[in-house]
Amino acid sequence: KTVVDKQIGGPCNPKIRKGESKVVDTVDIEELGNKAVFCRCWRSSKFPYCDGTHNQHNVACGDNVGPLIVKKKD
Amino acid sequence: KTVVDKQIGGPCNPKIRKGESKVVDTVDIEELGNKAVFCRCWRSSKFPYCDGTHNQHNVACGDNVGPLIVKKKD
Ligand code: FES
Ligand code: FES
Repeated sequence: KTVVDKQIGGPCNPKIRKGESKVVDTVDIEELGNKAVFCRCWRSSKFPYCDGTHNQHNVACGDNVGPLIVKKKD
Repeated sequence: KTVVDKQIGGPCNPKIRKGESKVVDTVDIEELGNKAVFCRCWRSSKFPYCDGTHNQHNVACGDNVGPLIVKKKD
């Protein structure tokens, strides 16, 4: 366990690609299709895509995070 | 201060739009230009865009997060 200051906060990412010093993902616009949903909670099993786990994460620790949606105009 | 389990982790977002129950951002592909860089550390002053603050965040708390880059093919 680790103690975290609520104003500053703690690590976002408990588990994903911890062997990398900085997890950066790059996607091509041409590959996105009509809509792509990207994870910002660092809990998705489909990372960098969102799988909905942000909802459990938010309940579990009182957070309010959600994905980034990149889509073609309606 | 709050105690956090390192395996499960704690909140990602200490400060951004805490009045919203879930912070979801939607961007249109047509507005992205050649390259857009999106924050996944929840510390950017330009959120949902990255301003480089992930680097200080990673140093401050031993995290390894970085942005999502969406770009046109080279
Ligand atoms: S699963 Fe992480 S934002 Fe949806
Ligand atoms: S400032 Fe948050 S990922 Fe870069």
